[in-house]
Amino acid sequence: MNLDLLKEYASLLVRCGANVQAGQVVVVKGPVEAYEFIRLVVKEAYVAGAKHVVVEYEDLTNLKNSLFYKDIKTLENIPSYELAKFDYEVSNNACFISLTAPNPDALRVIEPIKLQTYNRALSKAKKEVNEYTMKSVGQWTVAGVATLKWAEKVFPNDSEAVDKLWKAILEASRVSVTGSIKNWQAHSEEIEKHAKLLNSLNLKKLHFKNDIGTDLVVELADKNIFAGGDEYSKSKVRFSPNIPTEEVFGMPHKLRVNGKVVSTKPLIYQGGLIDDFSLIFKDGKVIEYSAKKGIELLKNLLEFDEGSSYLGEVALISHNSPISNQNILFYNTLFDENASCHLALGAAYPMNTLNGNELSEEELISRGCNISNTHVDFMFGSSDMEVIGTSLDGKDIKIFENGNFVI
Amino acid sequence: MNLDLLKEYASLLVRCGANVQAGQVVVVKGPVEAYEFIRLVVKEAYVAGAKHVVVEYEDLTNLKNSLFYKDIKTLENIPSYELAKFDYEVSNNACFISLTAPNPDALRVIEPIKLQTYNRALSKAKKEVNEYTMKSVGQWTVAGVATLKWAEKVFPNDSEAVDKLWKAILEASRVSVTGSIKNWQAHSEEIEKHAKLLNSLNLKKLHFKNDIGTDLVVELADKNIFAGGDEYSKSKVRFSPNIPTEEVFGMPHKLRVNGKVVSTKPLIYQGGLIDDFSLIFKDGKVIEYSAKKGIELLKNLLEFDEGSSYLGEVALISHNSPISNQNILFYNTLFDENASCHLALGAAYPMNTLNGNELSEEELISRGCNISNTHVDFMFGSSDMEVIGTSLDGKDIKIFENGNFVI
Repeated sequence: MNLDLLKEYASLLVRCGANVQAGQVVVVKGPVEAYEFIRLVVKEAYVAGAKHVVVEYEDLTNLKNSLFYKDIKTLENIPSYELAKFDYEVSNNACFISLTAPNPDALRVIEPIKLQTYNRALSKAKKEVNEYTMKSVGQWTVAGVATLKWAEKVFPNDSEAVDKLWKAILEASRVSVTGSIKNWQAHSEEIEKHAKLLNSLNLKKLHFKNDIGTDLVVELADKNIFAGGDEYSKSKVRFSPNIPTEEVFGMPHKLRVNGKVVSTKPLIYQGGLIDDFSLIFKDGKVIEYSAKKGIELLKNLLEFDEGSSYLGEVALISHNSPISNQNILFYNTLFDENASCHLALGAAYPMNTLNGNELSEEELISRGCNISNTHVDFMFGSSDMEVIGTSLDGKDIKIFENGNFVI
Repeated sequence: MNLDLLKEYASLLVRCGANVQAGQVVVVKGPVEAYEFIRLVVKEAYVAGAKHVVVEYEDLTNLKNSLFYKDIKTLENIPSYELAKFDYEVSNNACFISLTAPNPDALRVIEPIKLQTYNRALSKAKKEVNEYTMKSVGQWTVAGVATLKWAEKVFPNDSEAVDKLWKAILEASRVSVTGSIKNWQAHSEEIEKHAKLLNSLNLKKLHFKNDIGTDLVVELADKNIFAGGDEYSKSKVRFSPNIPTEEVFGMPHKLRVNGKVVSTKPLIYQGGLIDDFSLIFKDGKVIEYSAKKGIELLKNLLEFDEGSSYLGEVALISHNSPISNQNILFYNTLFDENASCHLALGAAYPMNTLNGNELSEEELISRGCNISNTHVDFMFGSSDMEVIGTSLDGKDIKIFENGNFVI
């Protein structure tokens, strides 16, 4: 891929994504295979004035061997030096740049019980880091990075797979040789306008319906606020949590979701694939589920903790969004979720209720906010999706017709 | 490079190099570019029963940017999570596998004062780790790994440089498709015999002389013990600290080295090159020095701390050693030192004096042991080197003639 474009992209992630501030600690996390692109991001972070950059390389092959050979007891403990790193990051008010490149087959040989044990231990160890980002105490951004394994999944048997994937990532992220930052900022403002419009409708609930079986009523949390586009950290630094993003999203009321939802795209979870699945909700909780692929992983997800069988996010995206129109199945939630209406199991974002980032856990719960140590998006949008909203004063409003916004 | 050979090599490093014990923590350290070979080592460590493998990726490009953009004050502090990692390694009685691949041009743009500041801070932070390995509390091994940058230095303008470098590394390390471990063990035993023979001579001092200007008398520390080949950790686990190794080495008396030594191979230090240099010693201390290349780096080294202008090691290697006969300038001390007699500035290995690993610092100093936070080997062997030893009872014994052992 053209080095100038990659530099533009690195710059976009540092300047708009995390919006690195002078003197700040920056965490750059990504797959070790992408070390060359990671270098560009690290350099750009220093150019932007970073005091120190923590680089966290991820290697699913090493993780696979670690999980395969360790016993369950060992997996229950995250080594102390890892905990110290998380502490350092939070206590130094770091910002986070996370590069994702799924490799859904990497952990296939690992017993689900081992995966679950490890992921629970890691979630517990990262509780503060996760709260820090969920509450946007500091800035954070998640973006894609092309690797061979991911590219081969998206473009099988194609010798140009990596280049094609880079092209798709950069296109979705509005990167061009010049003007990437301006393009991105304009796009973020568009999404924010959209969220404002939705908020002006004072919606109480959303009813999703399509021909493949989704028939779901999602009541929104008290004082729900639809968000999208940029956010602000506690110290009022603007940042873009996802690059790319097309979504406007709100907070479902934890205990007021009823009906059935049918997935429309595969979901990568714990390094494996869950596909063709459906969930039935009663009073917020998943009471029945099925999956043609990855049922064990889905079970792991739903049983991860108390909150992981309740919703934490509801997101609206037109079926003809730019990412959707690329017509690529990315096998990466960051991209696929932006091509489709989606929900998330697990923790809700406190910012999706009025002044939520300032509320205590009890106050959040009383608003209907779901608490969990996980947050996993899944896609259920379709070209025939209808969404009817009901406002607080009882009026029905058509929000989606044939998969697209009509407001 | 043939994957089976690389797996053999990874196995050699784990089984003979660090000799990983069941239930042990293992640290695998190496350049990020070599992540694929690192995976083989990590897997082999788990197969050998490692409880946990800490992977430390090194990236000189990120380090360069970190040093370039940070101010001196920031460089004085090593982040707390790094300290926690060093603590974890020592307190868990880890063994260490370090993969080296020099890239002498990587840090050329960095001001020497910044390099010195960072390296001093790092040495201080790693004091316990360094003592842990210098005293062989746990097992450790240093070995080579081929990277593009290193290969291009050794075989410039050669499209097969990486393969050629791998070939040279594997040959020097006695790796073959079968029998690598047996070959290596036999070789280690040969070196141990050699060290025993030297010890039987009860040498008091060594006089080095050749035609390019070396004329140096190195008196040995009290109760000097020549070592070479394998070592034993505190808990009596056998290990090979260097793969490859050809050397037999002893402890110079810190205060009893006099004369001049002229280098015969370049030296990589702090990511830069020192070449064509000479040192003049009086009562153990370097009192004059010159270098055609890298004089600033040499100054940095000599002024690193009090001990870095005194010797800590004297090693004897025949000029026609197998590595020497490959006739390759590796620009990597691990290899080049095994093709040439060498000395080290900085810390001595306590094991080079009788029961040294059990002695206090004061006791070691009284034996003539040099204490320092650094240890840097440099090469001065030549094809015309003569070495005359003098025994404790005053007899002269010819040790080297025309660059080779004659005992």
